[in-house]
Amino acid sequence: MRSFAGRDILSLKGFERAEFEHVFQVADELEPIARARRSTDLLAGKTLVTAFYQPSTRTRLAHEAAMHRLGGNVLGFSDAKMTRAGDFYQESIKDTVHMLEYYGDAIVMRHFQQGAPHEAARWASIPVINAGDGWGEHPTQVLTDLYTVRRELGQVDGLTFLCIGDMRMRTMHSIGYALTQFDAEMIAVAPPEMSLTEEFTAELAAQNLDVRQVDHVAEAIGEADVIYMEPVVQADYTASRDERGEQVGTTPENYRVTRELLREAKSDAIVLHSLPRMDELPPDVDDTRHARYWEEAYYGVVMRMALLSLVLGAQER
Amino acid sequence: MRSFAGRDILSLKGFERAEFEHVFQVADELEPIARARRSTDLLAGKTLVTAFYQPSTRTRLAHEAAMHRLGGNVLGFSDAKMTRAGDFYQESIKDTVHMLEYYGDAIVMRHFQQGAPHEAARWASIPVINAGDGWGEHPTQVLTDLYTVRRELGQVDGLTFLCIGDMRMRTMHSIGYALTQFDAEMIAVAPPEMSLTEEFTAELAAQNLDVRQVDHVAEAIGEADVIYMEPVVQADYTASRDERGEQVGTTPENYRVTRELLREAKSDAIVLHSLPRMDELPPDVDDTRHARYWEEAYYGVVMRMALLSLVLGAQER
Amino acid sequence: MRSFAGRDILSLKGFERAEFEHVFQVADELEPIARARRSTDLLAGKTLVTAFYQPSTRTRLAHEAAMHRLGGNVLGFSDAKMTRAGDFYQESIKDTVHMLEYYGDAIVMRHFQQGAPHEAARWASIPVINAGDGWGEHPTQVLTDLYTVRRELGQVDGLTFLCIGDMRMRTMHSIGYALTQFDAEMIAVAPPEMSLTEEFTAELAAQNLDVRQVDHVAEAIGEADVIYMEPVVQADYTASRDERGEQVGTTPENYRVTRELLREAKSDAIVLHSLPRMDELPPDVDDTRHARYWEEAYYGVVMRMALLSLVLGAQER
Repeated sequence: MRSFAGRDILSLKGFERAEFEHVFQVADELEPIARARRSTDLLAGKTLVTAFYQPSTRTRLAHEAAMHRLGGNVLGFSDAKMTRAGDFYQESIKDTVHMLEYYGDAIVMRHFQQGAPHEAARWASIPVINAGDGWGEHPTQVLTDLYTVRRELGQVDGLTFLCIGDMRMRTMHSIGYALTQFDAEMIAVAPPEMSLTEEFTAELAAQNLDVRQVDHVAEAIGEADVIYMEPVVQADYTASRDERGEQVGTTPENYRVTRELLREAKSDAIVLHSLPRMDELPPDVDDTRHARYWEEAYYGVVMRMALLSLVLGAQER
Repeated sequence: MRSFAGRDILSLKGFERAEFEHVFQVADELEPIARARRSTDLLAGKTLVTAFYQPSTRTRLAHEAAMHRLGGNVLGFSDAKMTRAGDFYQESIKDTVHMLEYYGDAIVMRHFQQGAPHEAARWASIPVINAGDGWGEHPTQVLTDLYTVRRELGQVDGLTFLCIGDMRMRTMHSIGYALTQFDAEMIAVAPPEMSLTEEFTAELAAQNLDVRQVDHVAEAIGEADVIYMEPVVQADYTASRDERGEQVGTTPENYRVTRELLREAKSDAIVLHSLPRMDELPPDVDDTRHARYWEEAYYGVVMRMALLSLVLGAQER
Repeated sequence: MRSFAGRDILSLKGFERAEFEHVFQVADELEPIARARRSTDLLAGKTLVTAFYQPSTRTRLAHEAAMHRLGGNVLGFSDAKMTRAGDFYQESIKDTVHMLEYYGDAIVMRHFQQGAPHEAARWASIPVINAGDGWGEHPTQVLTDLYTVRRELGQVDGLTFLCIGDMRMRTMHSIGYALTQFDAEMIAVAPPEMSLTEEFTAELAAQNLDVRQVDHVAEAIGEADVIYMEPVVQADYTASRDERGEQVGTTPENYRVTRELLREAKSDAIVLHSLPRMDELPPDVDDTRHARYWEEAYYGVVMRMALLSLVLGAQER
């Protein structure tokens, strides 16, 4: 297994089983700190640079909270418009990185362009963590999600993941790559125009993950151990809301998980959603035995504690 | 007296006299730290989450400065537009809180909707502090203001508060509730369309605070010990400034406190204003013996030190 | 030499040779901390207040990184729109300062109006650092630049500075004032409408710095030891890009430094640019022996460490 010290976390493609296990183990070791709301000095004197070219709440703050729990500092920007980099200069990633690398010890980057964090990593002398790159990947989110599964259900092997929503979204790419490393099944439910690309399904198949596609959540909910959701954002959604001041474009029922539908689910099936949600996951699901998305938010801090301590070399022994 | 550890600070309605006294006493104990520009480790390892759905400078930064003086950390957002929560998802307070509660040890929230911090407190496992909710309340500001009065004039009992400006504003609600716990008088001066509601005056009267209303500051300035101001913001104020590039809609003289008028004031009367100001308080008042709004800004840090150390349990013995 | 403890850093006009030397020496002492990516507790318990009325990435984050390396804290705002101070209240600098001075131990201010930091310093009880004021000055940037020159070329005396770009920009004013304290030459290349004012050249001449002006970089590049660049921003640049979605208004070749032109430069000439850049400095210059703008970014942190530790009194012995 490659060492994590100094390493970039850009993609889960090629992330190996032993690496997942090691990350999970480090998370297990650090979890009691977060649970007790304590802090340590594991990363004292270390600074994380947040380079968010798109707004984010959960991903950015989970990284910040993780640094604080580990005794480190955070600086950076949370919106491209807040920086000279985002104005009409349209500064290159290379130029931006050859500034940010002097301000801290690791960079966590969200960018609207797929591949931007990879470009950053090409130039940076410090580790770069991909916090979501366009339609690309979202590795730290999916590591969080699988860690949540492991904490809640004991293991990932042997489970069936029912993935619902826009399959072009970055979490769906990352979870596909991740599941190739486990003995797991993946079933996808998405509107036709948002389905998995042939190229991507072929890539997963080549690694022995055959993704079954169904048209309606109801067709497969009884098989699922993990119900893994993303919103189905209609193209005209925002515009419609802005003009009329009310929500339109409700999610078709094929891609919604309701309290009623969950009666067909296995009794210990869990629902994950990286949030925020629209109407694909009604609030009355929160009170069912299946909801685990708030635990997922909590483990989001724990996982970032593990990843940051790893890439910053605090776990080397 | 109820313990403050783990408690929300949402409203001054029902805040009891002994609680005011306890908060003031803790502030007195911590004040020398702020005065000497020192810091302690009272809240070392603790993190405050700032959830500001509306911009703020004073309230947000006074909380941040207080955390730094006490050795703690801060993370969060300072504008709803900077978060996914504020975009077209329009995430519920419940969902947002079930994320933020994992990022720190207390949440301080400003929101454009009255009652939003109360809704947050309903769901949060950690204390929620109301930093201003729409037309609702602004308890930490008014605790600051009364603490300033106590520091500058020795006590609150026996004093007459002349409250000037828009009586629908949140500070006016909080100060009304607060003064019911003291042997104090309240006189209100406001434009008719901005006057105290009958419901609110009845509520105060039921607690033995009879608010006298006058039409012009000049009618009552001679009686005042504390001149307590808020801007009178005309509905068309911003628009007018934007179009013509100059300030219009000056505050009617009934609601202004000028150097000339202050000649009629008691010699030790003090002027408080939570700032920013428009033209209701001309800058030449700054040099009078009455101005205390900069002391008020200073005590804003001290009061937040007291409140944060209290709700985070650092004052339990 | 005046003590730096408690002092404002507003301008390099009147900054004396011994003061430059002292700042450089303190930077030399602190540099190993930044190089090793370590931190100290030299400014533990101290807080820097960032008051950025205009967005900035490099200047703001370099100050924040410097505080973190020295064990201190940072709070503030990074955009006027994020504060009440920047909305329709248009709060005076005086009022804003009589709030910020209670939140920390020094204020670093960028403002779109020339002289705003000077106005702030008039009222503040704590040191104010000018992080760029309109067309005024940018002292911390130019101290960074001269320190970079000293690190890379050994000294400033005896060198020829070829300054290229808009001579009305604040760095050009600061470097002019700075070079009067050294045995250095300054050559300026700028579009006629962006050239040095007669008043400013007269002011420099009175201090024995005669600035030679040439029309094309090529005329003087062979003489330069330091090639000091700023963008030449055309008035219609942004508009053109916005409408057509592509870059127009390319910099005239008179004010560009290309790989080809650098063949005429001295072998140890260095190129500095505070960045971000447009097309006046093509990316293929990055690989030449002359490029030092990334070192300049690094020394930007070191110089702010020196300045902050000086004005906060941590260097008094």
